[in-house]
This record gives sequence, C-alpha cells and structure tokens, in this order.
Amino acid sequence: MLTYIYLIAITAESMSGALAAGRRNMDIFGVSLIAFITALGGGTVRDILLGNYPIGWTQHPAYIYLTIGAGLFTIIIARVMHHLQQLFLVLDAMGLIAFTIIGCNVALGLGYSVTVVVMAGITTGIFGGILRDIFCNRTPLVLRKELYASVSLLVALIYLGLGKLSFNHDVNQLISFVIGLVVRLAAIRWSWKLPVFSYIPGRWKE
Amino acid sequence: MLTYIYLIAITAESMSGALAAGRRNMDIFGVSLIAFITALGGGTVRDILLGNYPIGWTQHPAYIYLTIGAGLFTIIIARVMHHLQQLFLVLDAMGLIAFTIIGCNVALGLGYSVTVVVMAGITTGIFGGILRDIFCNRTPLVLRKELYASVSLLVALIYLGLGKLSFNHDVNQLISFVIGLVVRLAAIRWSWKLPVFSYIPGRWKE
Amino acid sequence: MLTYIYLIAITAESMSGALAAGRRNMDIFGVSLIAFITALGGGTVRDILLGNYPIGWTQHPAYIYLTIGAGLFTIIIARVMHHLQQLFLVLDAMGLIAFTIIGCNVALGLGYSVTVVVMAGITTGIFGGILRDIFCNRTPLVLRKELYASVSLLVALIYLGLGKLSFNHDVNQLISFVIGLVVRLAAIRWSWKLPVFSYIPGRWKE
Repeated sequence: MLTYIYLIAITAESMSGALAAGRRNMDIFGVSLIAFITALGGGTVRDILLGNYPIGWTQHPAYIYLTIGAGLFTIIIARVMHHLQQLFLVLDAMGLIAFTIIGCNVALGLGYSVTVVVMAGITTGIFGGILRDIFCNRTPLVLRKELYASVSLLVALIYLGLGKLSFNHDVNQLISFVIGLVVRLAAIRWSWKLPVFSYIPGRWKE
Repeated sequence: MLTYIYLIAITAESMSGALAAGRRNMDIFGVSLIAFITALGGGTVRDILLGNYPIGWTQHPAYIYLTIGAGLFTIIIARVMHHLQQLFLVLDAMGLIAFTIIGCNVALGLGYSVTVVVMAGITTGIFGGILRDIFCNRTPLVLRKELYASVSLLVALIYLGLGKLSFNHDVNQLISFVIGLVVRLAAIRWSWKLPVFSYIPGRWKE
Repeated sequence: MLTYIYLIAITAESMSGALAAGRRNMDIFGVSLIAFITALGGGTVRDILLGNYPIGWTQHPAYIYLTIGAGLFTIIIARVMHHLQQLFLVLDAMGLIAFTIIGCNVALGLGYSVTVVVMAGITTGIFGGILRDIFCNRTPLVLRKELYASVSLLVALIYLGLGKLSFNHDVNQLISFVIGLVVRLAAIRWSWKLPVFSYIPGRWKE
C-alpha cells in the first residue's frame, strides 16, 4: 500500500514543484527539473547523507518519467488547479507522511541509530520542498507555515515508538499514517502553527 | 580532443562564475569560490549522485588552480569583457556540450541505464550554472533563457542514439558536438526559447 | 583540546544559524533545522565531497541534540544577544579555525593531496555559514565581509606548512589556532577586507 501512496506522493510533489517553477516563469525544461527535484530530491538527499548507493531513482527510471510527466501535465491543467486545491493539499499531506515512513525504513535497514532514523524520515519528507524553494529563490515555506515539518517529526516518532512496542509492521505504518494525516489536515483547517521566532537585529551589527 | 575542449570549458565557466560573483560585490575569495563551483560543480553533483568516488577534481589539483586562476584573471579583464562577449558565448556553448558528453561517458562507464546516462549528461552540463546562481541568490538563468539546458538534453540524446547505431566513438562525439554547437548558437542568434510556464497563483491560497 | 573547542564551535555556529532563521520569521522547527545545518553542514559537505562515510554526526547523536538545543536556547536569550556580541564573535572565530583544522585532519587521514586537504579545511570552516545563508535566501555573507573565509585558508596553509616542518602535531595545531584567531579578531576590529570585485554588467547582455 505504501508503494501506491508513494506514487501518489511523488505525483503531488511534482505538481507542487511545477507550480513553483511557473511562478518564476521557467520554461518547460525548468518545470520538468523542478518537478523532479521536488518529488525525488528529499529521498536523494537522504541517500547521500546515509551513503545509501545507488540512489533510488537511478534504479527506477519510471519514477523519473512520472515526475516529469506530472510536472508537464500541471502546465496543461494550471488554469483549473485552484479548483483542485483541497484535493491537492490532501495528496500533499499523504506524500509528506509516506515519504517520512519510507525514509525511516531506509535508515532502519542500514542500521542507523534512532536519532538518525528520525532525521532520515524528516529529510525524506521535507527536503524536496526545501530544494524546490531554494531553486526558485525563496525562503523555504515548510519552515514558516502551518505544521508541516513537525508533522513529519511526529510521524517518525510515532512510527518508531510503535516499532519499539513490536506491533505488526503494517499496523504501525497504518496508525502512523492516519494520525499524521489527521494532524496535518487539522493544522491546515485551523491554521495550527509552531511558535515563530522573529529576530530583528536591532543593535546587533551584522 | 574532448580534453582540450574540457579545459577551455572549465575556463569559460569559471569566468562566467566570476562575473556573477562580481555582480554581488564578492571579495576575491568569493570570486575564486564561485568560479570553482561554476566550473566543477556540475561534475561534482554528477559524481555524488552516481556514487562515483573519488570525485574528479580531488584527483586533479590542476583543475582547481585553473578555475581559480581563470576567476581571478576575469577581475583584471572585466573592463573589456563586453568586447569579448561573442567569443565568450561560443566558449560557453562548447563547454556546455563537452560537459554533457563527458557526463554521459562517466555514467555509461558505471553501467547506469539510458535514462540515468542522459540525466548525468545534463547534470554535468547545467548544474555548475545552477549552483552559481543559487550561491549568488538568483533564480537559475539556465531554466529561463534561450535554449540551454535543452541543448544539453539534445546532445545527450544524439550521442546515445549514435552510440546505439555503433558508429565510431570519436565520430559520435564529433557529430553530437557539432550539432549541439550549431543549435545553441542559433538559439542565441535568433532567441529560440522553449515555451515558458507563467503561473500566477490567483485564487490559489499559498 | 580541539574537541572542547569543537563543542564550543558548533554551539556558536548553531546560535548564528538560529539568529538568521529568526530574521526570516521561521518557526521553532525551522530554527532547529537551520541551527543544525549551520553547525554541522560544513563537515557534512566535506564528508560527501571526500566520500568519507558514515558522515560524522550520524555516529554522534549528541552533536545533533547539542546544535538543536543551542538553536532553541538562542530564542530564549535573543533579547540579550546584542550584549553578547563581542563574546559571540570570539566563539565564532574559534569555531571557524577549529573546523578548518579538523577538516584538514580528516582529508589528511584519507590520503588526499595537499590542495584537496586545504579545500577540505576551508569547506569545513565556511560551508555551514554558506548553507545557512542559502537556506535563508541571502547572498552568503562569508564571501563579502571582513576576512573570514581567507582566515580559514590561512590557517589551513599554516597548519600544513608546520606539518611539513614536522613539529609536534599538537604544537602545530596550537600555533595555527592562535595565529588564525589573532588575524580574525584583528580583521573584525579594524575591518580588514579582501579587495572586492564589483562588476556592473553595462553593455554585457545577460
């Protein structure tokens, strides 16, 4: 099941990347590249940090074509995208959580310690969006908006916690997934945010 | 021959990096660093993605000195650079294409599939320029201007296509090189562009 | 001794990252992430470039908690940070130099050539700050301000030079450290800068 959600996830992330590229007036090559990076960049950064070679998408060309295809398809349906925003946010939330669980699984398989497993989950979940924003020259959204990165952290912690209790693996994934999705959607609905740190340099000479 | 073109290429890319650093009023250390990253960053990203260690320039210190030297030399001749723009654009185009072919060769040597070989070629060709723009805090030019990244894609496809037809290796490189150069220079001359995707969020709530 | 200075260094770098995140109104997750990246990003980039796996912090979770803790602590004491600026600049300078020496040692241990050892030292010293600025969407400060990156270069050269003369290893580190600290603090005190390259495109058609 996680595989299907993963495919939905990289499609949704690709579309989010394509829209960001469109805001910067990129050409269709740029749209394809940003779509690819947004969808597969998080897993790529995770694999590089963990030394997990060969990197996932190099062994699955289909993922590459899916992300580029989804990016280009976004151009066609851009005019009606705002009608789909509710759906899109749900898909994006599903993607965030699926990525997180997959990232944890990869690090667990490589024998890393709990802290690194959590960080691998978060990296997989949020770094695609961070790279998208860096490539589009804006401050990463995921570090400023409603609970997003923190949902990734929460999912990783629940998933690992359930793992310690040695429930069935699939059940753990399902519970983590559902809790994460509920929290993320609630955060969007009621604008839940983490406390923000606004620092004005003042007398601090930069 | 590709080696000579490669040396010309990293020199031209270093100079382009130095000019970008100059637009941001960087000091001579910053100029050297951006020159190095612009020239050798594409190959570095490719090697990291493919797990191709040790990374090229760590085994060839001469390349490091060449890029830094070219960057610093650019400061000296900055006043007359605009007289050299035509020449510079040709060298830059040669670099783009040489980088692409070299990138394909590296991935082929490691036994990656065709799709990944093409992506390795493009990465080598364009990522130096992308990193330059990210380090200089601007939206990557190569994703918005005249055909550039797409020339890299075209060259990779022609090169691999000819390889399938099992012509002589050197001939394949020469043909790919010439076609790529002609297309790139024509794109500059007549401002050929890919379709641009301009997305204005409108009712989309970010 | 270098270990203690290293711990001070990553604390100081985390705080600098947290302040930068605060200027971008990031939430506490963003502050934690930027603190972590600023403190441990330089060593991470070095390890990736040198193929030095597993990456340092994946084996030392305590460093991760230290950087995040220092980042969050910065939020609490932000109001009084400007009183501590002098102290902070000294700690930051100590960090820059300690990072540089550690980076050289890592590359030496892997058998890289002198040029690459110097680059590994500089990368460890300055890339945390560069990543901080890229993630916070600003042009890297370390390439534009008072002598900073160049102090890292100087320390690396002195350290390697002393190594050639085969003094005692600890003595070499101490001498390099003291000279670097004096130069950096003098650079801050008297605003020593490298020559700046300001390039205005003029007739150069971008």
